[in-house]
Amino acid sequence: MQITIVGTGLIGCSLGMALKKQGHHITGADSNPDNLEKALFRGGVDEAKELTEALKDTQLVVLCVPVNAVKELIVPILDAMPDNAVLMDMGSTKEEICAVAGAHPRRADFVAVHPMAGVEHSGPLAAHVDLFLHARVIVCDAQKSATNALNTVLGILQELKMKVIFMDARQHDRQLALVSHLPQFIAYALSAMEDFGDPSNKDWVELGGGGLQSSIRLGKSDAGMWIPIFQQNKENILKYIDRYMHKLQEMKYLLETRDELQMLELIRSSNKNYEKLNYRSNKPETVVPDNEATKLFYS
Amino acid sequence: MQITIVGTGLIGCSLGMALKKQGHHITGADSNPDNLEKALFRGGVDEAKELTEALKDTQLVVLCVPVNAVKELIVPILDAMPDNAVLMDMGSTKEEICAVAGAHPRRADFVAVHPMAGVEHSGPLAAHVDLFLHARVIVCDAQKSATNALNTVLGILQELKMKVIFMDARQHDRQLALVSHLPQFIAYALSAMEDFGDPSNKDWVELGGGGLQSSIRLGKSDAGMWIPIFQQNKENILKYIDRYMHKLQEMKYLLETRDELQMLELIRSSNKNYEKLNYRSNKPETVVPDNEATKLFYS
Repeated sequence: MQITIVGTGLIGCSLGMALKKQGHHITGADSNPDNLEKALFRGGVDEAKELTEALKDTQLVVLCVPVNAVKELIVPILDAMPDNAVLMDMGSTKEEICAVAGAHPRRADFVAVHPMAGVEHSGPLAAHVDLFLHARVIVCDAQKSATNALNTVLGILQELKMKVIFMDARQHDRQLALVSHLPQFIAYALSAMEDFGDPSNKDWVELGGGGLQSSIRLGKSDAGMWIPIFQQNKENILKYIDRYMHKLQEMKYLLETRDELQMLELIRSSNKNYEKLNYRSNKPETVVPDNEATKLFYS
Repeated sequence: MQITIVGTGLIGCSLGMALKKQGHHITGADSNPDNLEKALFRGGVDEAKELTEALKDTQLVVLCVPVNAVKELIVPILDAMPDNAVLMDMGSTKEEICAVAGAHPRRADFVAVHPMAGVEHSGPLAAHVDLFLHARVIVCDAQKSATNALNTVLGILQELKMKVIFMDARQHDRQLALVSHLPQFIAYALSAMEDFGDPSNKDWVELGGGGLQSSIRLGKSDAGMWIPIFQQNKENILKYIDRYMHKLQEMKYLLETRDELQMLELIRSSNKNYEKLNYRSNKPETVVPDNEATKLFYS
């Protein structure tokens, strides 16, 4: 297939590497020529073109840019791409993106996709051919995409051996705020604490163990990707920040008042939630189709 | 050497496995007979005894119990162990423990030790012979220990190939509150959020990616170990919780007011702190002796 990847950073370049392996021809477009050059070097694209050129004769356009750029590019790309082409995005938010697409006459040629894959590093040099292998991928508002568009996208996701979950865009943004955007937000807050720069804590780098490394790892993530996610999913994220701070306040009170029984209770809930997540990691891999859109699609 | 390990959970059993490999004879004591049986099965102890029996003819006693139990056991063990024996602990707090030891006539036979090693799992079945290999280990208030006691303990730490850092107990507790106890506290708070049990979030387990896994991993840690640490280092931890919540508030305000420039600034500090920590992980391994006690000891 003739595929155009717009945005050749970590996600775009990794995707290109995996799809080239499947025999597809990849054209890359990027407003950052440095990214494009590195993606060519990494083998993530077969050729580099200006966006307008890259849209000619393409069969599938994949937006691998930050979610603010996804919103800006959907309309011009749907306007310009060939009649039989399909557009998909790879953004971490879905409600605002689907709203923009929904206002376009070619909405049915668009498929809203969110791969649950990524690392704290960014850019084409951090790309990996197996970044998406066996990872989960969410397809949103699938009933608003045409069957042939959905078939094209699901075929690609199957080639990548990803596990597809169908979900509506609103539910996606609400749930992702809890499982992804909140953890990222609080990791930034921890990592940004001025105390790490305090000379009286000069030994912190030597003293930090695996716990700090786990907690601070997300602090490395790219601001250019995350600030637009925070903005687009602001209301949901703010709600969970409040609930998280409430839980911190509660725990702080239990510590101050030496209420060890209630603290034990609270920690046992933590342990249980960890077990649930851990149970999943050990489960055999399955496709999880679970809502109306899926039933429609598979019927 | 004849070594007695008191507490044969993750830490005690792992230590026993490593020291047996070095040819030492390990006697285990544990108020929990189930732990002791599993430690025998794992090869973490050569024989199991009642504590009083286990102290006879021993040359080194290692306390591998939660820090509240360390505080309770120091005095009876210093009272009962042979005249030439040495006592060390492996607790994650040091100020209260050193204060208890400091009030005993045999203070010089005690060495306060904190290995920066551990995993989120607990118990002898999670033990690993290489748990301590190349890990950092902090020795506190070394100038209050006798030279022969310090020699015995540093010999053992060298056999384990650990990297020794000297520090005073007060400084230890203050710095560890930031790099270890705060990250643990906030991971418990995140993992304990009721939203993970909310039926409208039933998909969270499927949706959680690597970010959530990093953040929630510490939520698995054992309450029996951590509640006493929180209590013994309460003042320092409360101070850092306040500062962390202040940073969360600041970030929340930047999100609410769409102040993307300030948000970028904040995230860049996160990125920088991550880089410092990451830089350390890539450094060649070195022993880091850095204070008065070290100079005394090495002179």
